Amino acid sequence: MKIITTPSEMQAWSRERLIAGERIACVPTMGYLHEGHLSLVRRARTAADRVVLTLFVNPTQFGPGEDYAIYPRDPGRDRALCEAEGVDVIFMPTAAEMYAPDASTAVVEEALSRRLCGASRPGHFRGVCTVVSKLFNCVRPDVAVFGQKDAQQALVIKRMVRDLNFPIEIIVAPIVREPDGLALSSRNVRLSAEERKSALGLSRALGMAREAFARGERDAATVRRRIEEELAASGLRTDYVEIVDTGTMEPVAQLAPGVLVALAAFAGQTRLIDNCEL
Amino acid sequence: MKIITTPSEMQAWSRERLIAGERIACVPTMGYLHEGHLSLVRRARTAADRVVLTLFVNPTQFGPGEDYAIYPRDPGRDRALCEAEGVDVIFMPTAAEMYAPDASTAVVEEALSRRLCGASRPGHFRGVCTVVSKLFNCVRPDVAVFGQKDAQQALVIKRMVRDLNFPIEIIVAPIVREPDGLALSSRNVRLSAEERKSALGLSRALGMAREAFARGERDAATVRRRIEEELAASGLRTDYVEIVDTGTMEPVAQLAPGVLVALAAFAGQTRLIDNCEL
Repeated sequence: MKIITTPSEMQAWSRERLIAGERIACVPTMGYLHEGHLSLVRRARTAADRVVLTLFVNPTQFGPGEDYAIYPRDPGRDRALCEAEGVDVIFMPTAAEMYAPDASTAVVEEALSRRLCGASRPGHFRGVCTVVSKLFNCVRPDVAVFGQKDAQQALVIKRMVRDLNFPIEIIVAPIVREPDGLALSSRNVRLSAEERKSALGLSRALGMAREAFARGERDAATVRRRIEEELAASGLRTDYVEIVDTGTMEPVAQLAPGVLVALAAFAGQTRLIDNCEL
Repeated sequence: MKIITTPSEMQAWSRERLIAGERIACVPTMGYLHEGHLSLVRRARTAADRVVLTLFVNPTQFGPGEDYAIYPRDPGRDRALCEAEGVDVIFMPTAAEMYAPDASTAVVEEALSRRLCGASRPGHFRGVCTVVSKLFNCVRPDVAVFGQKDAQQALVIKRMVRDLNFPIEIIVAPIVREPDGLALSSRNVRLSAEERKSALGLSRALGMAREAFARGERDAATVRRRIEEELAASGLRTDYVEIVDTGTMEPVAQLAPGVLVALAAFAGQTRLIDNCEL
């Protein structure tokens, strides 16, 4: 396994692989890898000859009051996990390598990124779209794998790839959960025992929404209210509960197959997200 | 020579060339080709194995009151000129092929694009950066050639390429002029005989600035005022006269080698630009 730290070295490696006629898959991550990330790596492996995992905690997608400084990091452990999964390259540039002091260019998506996490975290998707464009231009993959856990991110990236003609197929891999239902997240490590228990409210609320839909409930407002009650009862502070069309990210009045139920809530200081498609 | 009209066909062609180990040069144009464009093609030829000329009058870089509808077009003639120059591919997508009705992603450069044409034409460089990113992702060149005629555009594109890690070398080729000094432009065709005469005021004003600098003049305000007088005396309506640092596009007080003198002025309804570096 190769560790690459500069864009130019990454581009040179990819160019060689391309000339060799190989397909490259990219798995963009912020590191502190868990089974969710590793499931993306395995999915990537089935889609290409080579797998590049990018490991970069991107400062520009964190807001001023957010957790950039305390985002969990453990590059040594990440490296061992990637090695065990047969990753070909870890691309882990420094922030100084990625952003010139006078950087002045950004990629913005202005429809799907407005609501949900885009509303709660101003500038977040601008940071995501910009860094993912940069990573794509460094790695030049044929395919990139993102997690359904960040459902809105996956939809925004798909839109960006379409709009900017990136010659890249986007694969979205399912959420990986703990046995008790909690969606895996690097941020889970920061939960106290009690917060960990509260955090189950997210998947429980989604399960309830799915059940209500299966029983014939179609009123989005009713389901939304019940989810909010469930989150509050679990000791979580709701950031948002949204029931939206995945094509537009606009709220729907009626539940229907394919509709996205997306939640964000705080367990103590830690913001967690989860979602399901009906 | 191949004519390609869809992004996916363009990407497939480039992928084959890449696997063959060839270098691709891209010359982005809006068509209605003149000797200026052809000089870019010749420069491109020296830098790569294959030359792709893109021909696309990009609607998103024109403002509401601007000349998108009447921008001169002659694809038949352009085709013959490209054939004669040994262009390998003309990439000429339709606007409908390039922009989905719900396109919502843009590339923005927010420092070098603020002044000069960016101030006179709000949204212009957003349109330029977005379409050039798209064309780059379709053609996937190793090198792209732009004209010094659009000096600010070349600097904005260089900045964008650096900031987004496009693995593309940007070459800027010199302005080509008529024997009497007028910078070649597709828009010159719209000038009446009298406007054509007025238009010489642009290159004359730049010549005067260069001479003043050679004689030892260092005060930017003085030179700026004399340029404005020259443009007015020629019957032109000044849009802007700017004397700026090419690293920041901010005005300088003192003339120095490398400083950019950039002009935009109207001859009748037609907006013309010209520039020189001291």
